[in-house]
Amino acid sequence: MSPLVRPGLDQQALLQALRDALGAAHVLIADADDTLERHLVDWRKRYQGQALAIVRPADASQVATVIQLCARFGTSVVPQGGNTSLVGGSVPDATGTQIVLNLSRLNRVLAVDPANLSITVEAGCLLATVQSAAADAGLLFPLSLASEGSCTIGGNLATNAGGTQVLRYGTARELCLGLEAVTAQGDIWHGLQGLRKDNTGYDLRDLLIGSEGTLGIITAATLRLYPRPKGQATALLACPDMSAAVALLERARYHLDAGLTAYEVMAHLPLQLVQQHHPDVARVMATLTSEDGALPAWVILLDNCSNESEVHAQQRLQALLEQAMQDGLLTQATLASNASQRQAMWHLRETIPLSERAEGLMVKHDIGVPTSAMAVFINDTEQAIKARWPQARIICFGHLGDGNLHYNVQAPPDQSSGDASRAFEHAVNEVVFDHVQRFHGTLSAEHGIGVLRRDELVKRKPAVALSMMRAIKQALDPAGTLNPGRVL
Amino acid sequence: MSPLVRPGLDQQALLQALRDALGAAHVLIADADDTLERHLVDWRKRYQGQALAIVRPADASQVATVIQLCARFGTSVVPQGGNTSLVGGSVPDATGTQIVLNLSRLNRVLAVDPANLSITVEAGCLLATVQSAAADAGLLFPLSLASEGSCTIGGNLATNAGGTQVLRYGTARELCLGLEAVTAQGDIWHGLQGLRKDNTGYDLRDLLIGSEGTLGIITAATLRLYPRPKGQATALLACPDMSAAVALLERARYHLDAGLTAYEVMAHLPLQLVQQHHPDVARVMATLTSEDGALPAWVILLDNCSNESEVHAQQRLQALLEQAMQDGLLTQATLASNASQRQAMWHLRETIPLSERAEGLMVKHDIGVPTSAMAVFINDTEQAIKARWPQARIICFGHLGDGNLHYNVQAPPDQSSGDASRAFEHAVNEVVFDHVQRFHGTLSAEHGIGVLRRDELVKRKPAVALSMMRAIKQALDPAGTLNPGRVL
Repeated sequence: MSPLVRPGLDQQALLQALRDALGAAHVLIADADDTLERHLVDWRKRYQGQALAIVRPADASQVATVIQLCARFGTSVVPQGGNTSLVGGSVPDATGTQIVLNLSRLNRVLAVDPANLSITVEAGCLLATVQSAAADAGLLFPLSLASEGSCTIGGNLATNAGGTQVLRYGTARELCLGLEAVTAQGDIWHGLQGLRKDNTGYDLRDLLIGSEGTLGIITAATLRLYPRPKGQATALLACPDMSAAVALLERARYHLDAGLTAYEVMAHLPLQLVQQHHPDVARVMATLTSEDGALPAWVILLDNCSNESEVHAQQRLQALLEQAMQDGLLTQATLASNASQRQAMWHLRETIPLSERAEGLMVKHDIGVPTSAMAVFINDTEQAIKARWPQARIICFGHLGDGNLHYNVQAPPDQSSGDASRAFEHAVNEVVFDHVQRFHGTLSAEHGIGVLRRDELVKRKPAVALSMMRAIKQALDPAGTLNPGRVL
Repeated sequence: MSPLVRPGLDQQALLQALRDALGAAHVLIADADDTLERHLVDWRKRYQGQALAIVRPADASQVATVIQLCARFGTSVVPQGGNTSLVGGSVPDATGTQIVLNLSRLNRVLAVDPANLSITVEAGCLLATVQSAAADAGLLFPLSLASEGSCTIGGNLATNAGGTQVLRYGTARELCLGLEAVTAQGDIWHGLQGLRKDNTGYDLRDLLIGSEGTLGIITAATLRLYPRPKGQATALLACPDMSAAVALLERARYHLDAGLTAYEVMAHLPLQLVQQHHPDVARVMATLTSEDGALPAWVILLDNCSNESEVHAQQRLQALLEQAMQDGLLTQATLASNASQRQAMWHLRETIPLSERAEGLMVKHDIGVPTSAMAVFINDTEQAIKARWPQARIICFGHLGDGNLHYNVQAPPDQSSGDASRAFEHAVNEVVFDHVQRFHGTLSAEHGIGVLRRDELVKRKPAVALSMMRAIKQALDPAGTLNPGRVL
């Protein structure tokens, strides 16, 4: 790759122009300030970049100015929200020539419209801020994920974030009604609207959503809100095998319908790790363990919401579970009888990544397969991995209701560092992604492509789709100004 | 516009190549057969075209061949499903040089996957066929609209069809998981998949959906299925004014949540027309009329579904209506007590277009505004129309739950034919669309752009959006092979 700017004078001129436009206080030079490091390293600390500057525009108009200036100077831009990408999507490359466009100052809630069940927010709002603003109006913004206290809604939309309530409410894409965005030419597209239906031309909104900042910079969004459920019932269930867990999911969909808001799965091993590293947190599973203290093969965490009452939510769930128990789909069940028990159950699920981290490096995957193929996929992939690396450990958990698993593999001890570890990562990716492909699945269900999965995408995505994607990128950003090297 | 083909020899060579590829029986020459007329005239009989031939490929591979041949001969292609477009989207232009690509032979249901709640069908399947295939598996495909017995699922997706259950289940876009499509280069994109989450690159699926055959030819789709509701309650309600109708909608969303599957509105005048032309059908409103036989200002048709039972659906609805009645949001209510009463209520709604037709020509609009702006929009637009044309009649009905109205205006008697009628159409469009724009609405909520709304789109869509759309069209179909003159 050739450098995008001529070093020296041009860079100084760009920086000066940026300072003139945004004010010197909002054009930060990383060299001068170690506290800026967090803008240059990704969440998992796999990618360390450098930047010419980190700029913090105040509004869409200043974002447009930044893009215009960068385009004029042939400098590329890396948009950044909360910098919580798990695939290296929001840090600059190592050249030190890129501008990091941090959107954290675009943090206003612009409007809440209860009669239209919608909210309009700027892109730099934390996801938690959007949730709170909805709650303050007695409504629900249902997007919910682990990093909600630090990720931004702009990043959620740019990566089409998923999370724990997709089953009922959909991903970030399905929660978005309208967008405001800045194009690669530095024009503002005013596409904010609160309509449920609009068939006036190509779906630019959904094209920008999930494009990871490579086709435009999202500066604001109008989002769907929902009534808050009046009651919620949460259960922790022991399933004998994955077939039973999938059969129970099918029944839950029929029986609970839209009430079913979450259906999470946790395998034996990740739960063991929680027991080991966070025994207090694991205590909520006490009733699910056998007399000799053994954990079940799979534990399901299920939420049923009701628009009537807490009691109604409980009764509907209880009826489902009693029948499922009789039919052998589950062996034990615990219903949360109050809010703190419910939180304890969710805390178990949320503590898995932490417990996993205590065990050292994992090769992580965020894969999806149709739920009807899940049991065979799980079985075949595990067999293939164990056949080749008998000592590898598989940490499997995730959003079974959406067919989405976090499928992490730990190398055998003799391949856990250095070159051997890199070779293991490469080889185990091959095995996992080959199986995903065989079952018509996806190599990235919710985390996106970023840098981490780019080569894999190019290798496995159908050539026709790649060629359409490249044509679109070339059409909308011919100079390669926006987040180059991500996705494609 | 310059002609796309050199007449004569080239056309004959193309026809011969098409015959060789599809068999002579599936390359139909309109001149030779009057029964082909239905492929050349649109549903509303506003657009009469000519075609070089109507071709009927058997599968995606033959569709690809047709596109390759047409591209090679510089001939453009008009894809056609059930030819039920209301905006002239699926008939050829008047030049007689275009190829009509009729997809009716791609009519197989390829797979039903109950455990994944999905169905895979070819594009030429009638919507009713998809609904039946789902029902045969005990499941629901919720897309439902007036032309479901003659429109195809490919057309529904190409135009992002809406209908009566969008409120709960979304438009065609939201019901689609994966697509197979043929590009302008005649390549097949194999994008059929049954995943709820997939973040591997740009959203080509949603870009093709709603692009009206101008970016690719949809040949098959994997669609979401839902559990069939176990009970349904339907009510016909009299509302004193639009503010009350919108306030009742807001309550219904809170109280019924996902149970609320339809919320249709019908104004006084269209109901009068049903009374006049189809008195038997209007009888279902008997309990809503006042003692002197006057109809209410607005009638609401509401469906509440339950995943528990018929009784549960009724009880929940009844509780909502009792409170709303006390609070003055409605003045009369009739609940259907059996399936035939429910059908009679829906038949009332469905008979409006027929009754309207008996009254002569209407200037039709398919507009949307945020529901929170609906009452003011209705009031202001009516005032503006009546101020200028006191004798104009406004026939207003539609999907209030989605903020989508069919807002049709009949010219005063002295402007109902010839040049005066065309001038009236132009002028009333201006008034309606100006108001739509003022309330941040859409000039086409569910019917799309086609030919009918193209000039209006270019006039009213933000320039930045138009320029992105043109860049995408140019990138994916530089030769203009696919449905030229539609949308853009």
